[in-house]
Amino acid sequence: MIPGPTNVPARIINAMQKPMISHRSAEYHELHRSITEGARYAFQTKGDIFALTCSGTGGVECAVSNVISPGDRVIIPVNGVFSQRFEENIERFGGVPVEVPIEWGKAATPDQIKEAVKQEKNVKAIAVVYNETSTGATMRGLDEVGRIAEERGLLFMVDAISILCGDYLPVDSWKVDICIAGSQKCLACPPGVALISVSGKAWEAIGKDRRGSYYFDLLKARESHAKDETPFTPSIPVFYALDEALKMLREEGLENRIKRHKVCAEAFYNALQEMELQVLPDKQFRSNTVIAINIPRGIEDKAWRDLMREKYGVMVAGGMGKLKGSIIRIGSMGVVSRVEVTATIKALGKSLTDLGQKVNLKAGLAAVEKVFTSSS
Amino acid sequence: MIPGPTNVPARIINAMQKPMISHRSAEYHELHRSITEGARYAFQTKGDIFALTCSGTGGVECAVSNVISPGDRVIIPVNGVFSQRFEENIERFGGVPVEVPIEWGKAATPDQIKEAVKQEKNVKAIAVVYNETSTGATMRGLDEVGRIAEERGLLFMVDAISILCGDYLPVDSWKVDICIAGSQKCLACPPGVALISVSGKAWEAIGKDRRGSYYFDLLKARESHAKDETPFTPSIPVFYALDEALKMLREEGLENRIKRHKVCAEAFYNALQEMELQVLPDKQFRSNTVIAINIPRGIEDKAWRDLMREKYGVMVAGGMGKLKGSIIRIGSMGVVSRVEVTATIKALGKSLTDLGQKVNLKAGLAAVEKVFTSSS
Repeated sequence: MIPGPTNVPARIINAMQKPMISHRSAEYHELHRSITEGARYAFQTKGDIFALTCSGTGGVECAVSNVISPGDRVIIPVNGVFSQRFEENIERFGGVPVEVPIEWGKAATPDQIKEAVKQEKNVKAIAVVYNETSTGATMRGLDEVGRIAEERGLLFMVDAISILCGDYLPVDSWKVDICIAGSQKCLACPPGVALISVSGKAWEAIGKDRRGSYYFDLLKARESHAKDETPFTPSIPVFYALDEALKMLREEGLENRIKRHKVCAEAFYNALQEMELQVLPDKQFRSNTVIAINIPRGIEDKAWRDLMREKYGVMVAGGMGKLKGSIIRIGSMGVVSRVEVTATIKALGKSLTDLGQKVNLKAGLAAVEKVFTSSS
Repeated sequence: MIPGPTNVPARIINAMQKPMISHRSAEYHELHRSITEGARYAFQTKGDIFALTCSGTGGVECAVSNVISPGDRVIIPVNGVFSQRFEENIERFGGVPVEVPIEWGKAATPDQIKEAVKQEKNVKAIAVVYNETSTGATMRGLDEVGRIAEERGLLFMVDAISILCGDYLPVDSWKVDICIAGSQKCLACPPGVALISVSGKAWEAIGKDRRGSYYFDLLKARESHAKDETPFTPSIPVFYALDEALKMLREEGLENRIKRHKVCAEAFYNALQEMELQVLPDKQFRSNTVIAINIPRGIEDKAWRDLMREKYGVMVAGGMGKLKGSIIRIGSMGVVSRVEVTATIKALGKSLTDLGQKVNLKAGLAAVEKVFTSSS
């Protein structure tokens, strides 16, 4: 129950058993088309979409290195480790991040973005991390930010790595120009592939400056994509797995997949309230996919997580950056349902009891049951 | 029988069936250490080595973006598509390639490198593609080039993607500062991971300029490596597979692995001579892993390869770049033995007969048998 890589269903693991194929063969072309079609559904876009052999951070680098030229100013709210990474990535390629500082555990509001846009001149893009995996805070109102970006002629870049398909993000209707997702999160696929969507407006910004990454060059990707290929050798086994994961998404339906994540998160948050455990983000920012809990006074981070894992068989993650040691994080994504939520709440409650804390586990479990009963 | 991705043994495919693990867990740390140890054996190095989630081209980008600063001059022989790529990669990060132009199908000699080094001032590095996959030409005398680089204080960068473990490349004793290999070639692992070695001398050149790739930042990789981790999420299934592939390499022994590739290549070349089929490179440049054959007059590239694949079950690759349509390429790497060589020679001979060519297949097969009999 960490925030990715998630557990992977047997069907997806089994898909990696297929024989290796040439990435210049008809068999690959079919796989490529199928992934493209599935990814378009996941992103809700009619635009271009590419699968890249890299981690999510590689996907962010692809976005940045293709559209950000030296001196370009980019508005970016920073509220955790992954938005810091996005910012550092922009700096690496010569961009100038215009930081909107946000308390960790909160997320920027569209009004804060609007204000930043008003105050800054010569801005090229707005970059946001939709779901800050390090704090469990989700930014709300991305549709409004998309409208602001459109009005001002700015590019709208969204790192949706840990939330795509776990919450709403209709890329075309929310006017997202570049969106990045990871394979190993809400798609429940193994890690190794990032997905990136590119709007018509984004293409206009690409290709004027051919400095920067060769491996992540989107013009090369587009050229190969016209032949249903990638410019460089793709990770065939993870592509097989991703194709299967995208098929499973279509079978479940995107709306149902998002609802399932929402219901599981609600069960977590209600149970935690009953158990008097503090969630880091305020209600309006709480994520559907990453549940960040303040570690109760008197409990030691590693001892608690080790106990949960070793005695109760549930692995959760610790904090990152400046929150290391002060929060734990539950990944409620991909393969997640009543079973996983219940087991995790039990492990949380029992381990805390073992450590001498008074916890109302019964009330917590009742809250879980109530959410699932009323949602089914 | 294409020059990668190669066929993958069941043992390696099965290794990908293991459950997903957190890349920040003790289980991963063990996997990380095991891969590092195996890779050090494959590269014959005591230096640092990293597994990167990307294709071989990503590995080249990692090398370039970490050591090449704007204005740095790099001597690079260019004799095919992959050395062109290396050159383009250098340009992307502001480097200035000093091209040693070589006819496609040939490879540079150490004397040509020595001459280039003499004529150029302010050179930072020598970059070579050990085995030019697009032409089947292997550069000889890399040990001598390593000595030249050492004497002059230049960095020696080697793209060994399609040949590492298929021919000699003892990284430390040949004074290679940065060496790149791919998972999907002589290691018979699925694609998705590149390996890169970094010498002490290379580290001295790294870190002075923090522009360039964030995803491929070797300082970040080294920092995480100290904790047996990668800075970003690794492709767990391909890491599992690579670990198994490296175990199989140690079981077979590096010397035996190289000998097996050498013997198979010899069988191919001798058979082709008997069958009066022309090999593109001259004898001294012929590769142990990629056999490039000039397409006989009157034979059409695609029709020939389709026939081999559909009627005789053997897939070979076409030419790349300016050699498209004029050569075919056989990948003799990874899972390759008497069985594969015999099947491929049969498919070549029979398909050419079908297409109306006169071919002495019997003599070809006898040549194959002779090589394997005398080598065993």
